[in-house]
Amino acid sequence: MAINDLFDKDLKVINIGLGSFKDSLEEVNAGVVQVDWKPPAEIDEKTLNIISDNSSYIEKENKKCLNKTLSGTPFLIDLDRAINVIPGMKKNMILHAGPPITWDRMCGPMRGAIIGALIYEGMAENPEEAEKIAASNEIEYSPCHEHSTVGPMAGIVSSSMPVFVLKNEEYGNHAYCTLNEGLGKVLRYGAFSKEVIEKLRWMEAVLYPALKKAVRELGKIDLKNIIAQALHMGDEVHNRNRAATSLFYRQIAPAIIKTTKDTEIAVKVLEFINGNDHFFLNLSMPACKVTLDAARNIKGSSVVVAMTRNGTDFGIQLSGTGDQWFVGPAPIPDALFFPGYTKNDANRDIGDSSITETNGLGGFAIAASPAIVQFVGGAAQDALNYTQEMYEITVGENNIYQIPSLNFRGTPTGIDVIKVVEKGILPFIDTGVAHKNAGIGQVGAGVLSAPMEPFTKALKGLAESLENKDTNKKM
Amino acid sequence: MAINDLFDKDLKVINIGLGSFKDSLEEVNAGVVQVDWKPPAEIDEKTLNIISDNSSYIEKENKKCLNKTLSGTPFLIDLDRAINVIPGMKKNMILHAGPPITWDRMCGPMRGAIIGALIYEGMAENPEEAEKIAASNEIEYSPCHEHSTVGPMAGIVSSSMPVFVLKNEEYGNHAYCTLNEGLGKVLRYGAFSKEVIEKLRWMEAVLYPALKKAVRELGKIDLKNIIAQALHMGDEVHNRNRAATSLFYRQIAPAIIKTTKDTEIAVKVLEFINGNDHFFLNLSMPACKVTLDAARNIKGSSVVVAMTRNGTDFGIQLSGTGDQWFVGPAPIPDALFFPGYTKNDANRDIGDSSITETNGLGGFAIAASPAIVQFVGGAAQDALNYTQEMYEITVGENNIYQIPSLNFRGTPTGIDVIKVVEKGILPFIDTGVAHKNAGIGQVGAGVLSAPMEPFTKALKGLAESLENKDTNKKM
Repeated sequence: MAINDLFDKDLKVINIGLGSFKDSLEEVNAGVVQVDWKPPAEIDEKTLNIISDNSSYIEKENKKCLNKTLSGTPFLIDLDRAINVIPGMKKNMILHAGPPITWDRMCGPMRGAIIGALIYEGMAENPEEAEKIAASNEIEYSPCHEHSTVGPMAGIVSSSMPVFVLKNEEYGNHAYCTLNEGLGKVLRYGAFSKEVIEKLRWMEAVLYPALKKAVRELGKIDLKNIIAQALHMGDEVHNRNRAATSLFYRQIAPAIIKTTKDTEIAVKVLEFINGNDHFFLNLSMPACKVTLDAARNIKGSSVVVAMTRNGTDFGIQLSGTGDQWFVGPAPIPDALFFPGYTKNDANRDIGDSSITETNGLGGFAIAASPAIVQFVGGAAQDALNYTQEMYEITVGENNIYQIPSLNFRGTPTGIDVIKVVEKGILPFIDTGVAHKNAGIGQVGAGVLSAPMEPFTKALKGLAESLENKDTNKKM
Repeated sequence: MAINDLFDKDLKVINIGLGSFKDSLEEVNAGVVQVDWKPPAEIDEKTLNIISDNSSYIEKENKKCLNKTLSGTPFLIDLDRAINVIPGMKKNMILHAGPPITWDRMCGPMRGAIIGALIYEGMAENPEEAEKIAASNEIEYSPCHEHSTVGPMAGIVSSSMPVFVLKNEEYGNHAYCTLNEGLGKVLRYGAFSKEVIEKLRWMEAVLYPALKKAVRELGKIDLKNIIAQALHMGDEVHNRNRAATSLFYRQIAPAIIKTTKDTEIAVKVLEFINGNDHFFLNLSMPACKVTLDAARNIKGSSVVVAMTRNGTDFGIQLSGTGDQWFVGPAPIPDALFFPGYTKNDANRDIGDSSITETNGLGGFAIAASPAIVQFVGGAAQDALNYTQEMYEITVGENNIYQIPSLNFRGTPTGIDVIKVVEKGILPFIDTGVAHKNAGIGQVGAGVLSAPMEPFTKALKGLAESLENKDTNKKM
């Protein structure tokens, strides 16, 4: 038979990708022929050549980047108000999800969440007034990611909001995230009605002090340990956080009772957490952020350290290119829509929560969480396939985070922009879906692939930084 | 190629098993030839003929049995002392795991647990005195299973021990189980030192009243719902109960704080549960018991409703044969032994916990919990294979309990003694391993297959009951 005949002969590999592939094959003495080839995405020849010429250097730097990611140790160490702890935070500043964006280009749900935040801060009496202030130059907008912070969906953080304080004990850096509001009408999906603001005020007045006292009582909570266990328990800690929330709850409950003397309050706080299986999302996100931030600024590394959406643009940052953003239009997710809503109602993809995928969790670990694909009409095998595919575009595997159904293989970690462009395989992301208009909220949940444009731009950006490096050396 | 050629032709099936197989094939118009055949196990011709002749009747009754099992609704509704609630319980009675057994035939860990129970009850001052009383005819021994009760490992229940009270709301029957003591030196593994008794006293004085008040505050806790979720979270609710314990904890914690005014006690109770991932085992077991007890006494049904071990014998009961026990020697499990112990230290298999397998959980659902096979050196694929094999010997699939990695297929439910004997496939059981000597405790955890003898005896017993049925009819 033809296939069997093929394997009887000596194999010669025809490499039609970047030169780095050829080099690897030559190392293991496989016969290899390099063929001129243009990747599916539009990449200029100069970029390709620079990347090819630097392939072994890039590989070395990527290993450094992976090692820093794998050795990170995210702990929850405290809670505080945004203004007190987030670097660069100001009274009139509002942080948002995704790459930088101005009010005029912001999508409905992000505008809605900003309106809510201005009312919550007492800077506006009503939505009309809030909108006027938001559009004026009184307010300074800045991406969460540029302030060691991440936020789900609209990702709005205003100065007096309470935030979790995380520390990467291995490297000493910190990260921050607001507290999860639960489902229904919530700010992060762009809702700003009275009940949304009232819940935020309750969280500030009751939930925040109770959690702060409990976390201080415990000293710290090991989030890497919780995430590792949760992956063995059906979570991928992006769209499914039931196990992680349960494990967190088990740790925090006795400390809450010890430190919150008012029994009625302690009960309400526990019931709030118990009532929201997504509570841990706002801990898994900054756990990934604090881990990846330590792996930034490794010159030459083609690994993605931020991948995020503001509801208009999809942006990424590479370890090798510092604070530079590479953006393209954000896609609209495939989703299971709530009754009464369709894809026509859906906003473009939004939120910093894809920091979980950037750290090899979420859609990258979806094989651990087949319930999510079932949710959008897929089979358990699809979940395995999605994760398997992500190994194609990552530089390594996690040593702690494992997928039981893949025989406890480590999660695919460290998205390599070269592999993404070369293979045309795009990062797979789990996501929630917001209504495109301000003030409505969540309309579904689903999955999507990242768009190619930010990755091709990032590859070019990396090549430019390598070119400058060489120029600098020569000078 | 030979295999392909085979599939090009019309297939004729040669049935070498019982006639019931042939009937099913004839129903779908497959060509079938019945061949005289003797199953691997020793079954006399008369038994085979009776079973064959009654195959469609048995099948019908098995469907009834399965339906009753699937429609059961186990709830935790209360806690109380054994003497107050367990039917037939007496001051001088001690319940034990497995089929009936006398003191002289009891294994070391069961004797050890009885010694501990007599000290705990204040009926003996020290182990020597306890052993004397235990061996006298002052004490009446009876299997838990004959009192709507189940107990893990030695399964010892004495009159003043607190027990969970469960109700099958669909059918109105109840079941009972003691509270899980945690790991280390514990009564259920045959330890009876001072610390063991002290912990039991603390559980009686502190844990029991706190849980009782909390359960009464909640009214009831839906255990079927917790088990269904836990199967999506890496548990099989026999050797792994981390998710189920977490979900139970989330429900009970606010109620404990509400009803136990002393904060210090509330914290200790929560920390006790949080410190023991097996806490839910003593709820999953009676949940299975209360479910299967409602499926008993369906004349003609070849489905197993109890499968249990006393550390000496392995016994089963069928729905179609009432309270009759079918026993054979209990095997020694394959296990991961704790440092310093080997298979030479291991007691024969012991405990009522195989009620979980009898209800399609535990080893039957091990595909949901690959961490358990990894524990004894297996791969995730082995877990899938074990569960797949159990579909071969069961009458149906659960409609609520699912295996995510098998694309959410229902768990294999209702062990059919005919299929077990016919196919020579034995039920696969997860288990803990006790030291064979009294007073030592747990030495490992592992897996094993049930022995064949109880099943061949049960098949014969079923045939006899069917023969009597016919005789009765004719009279």
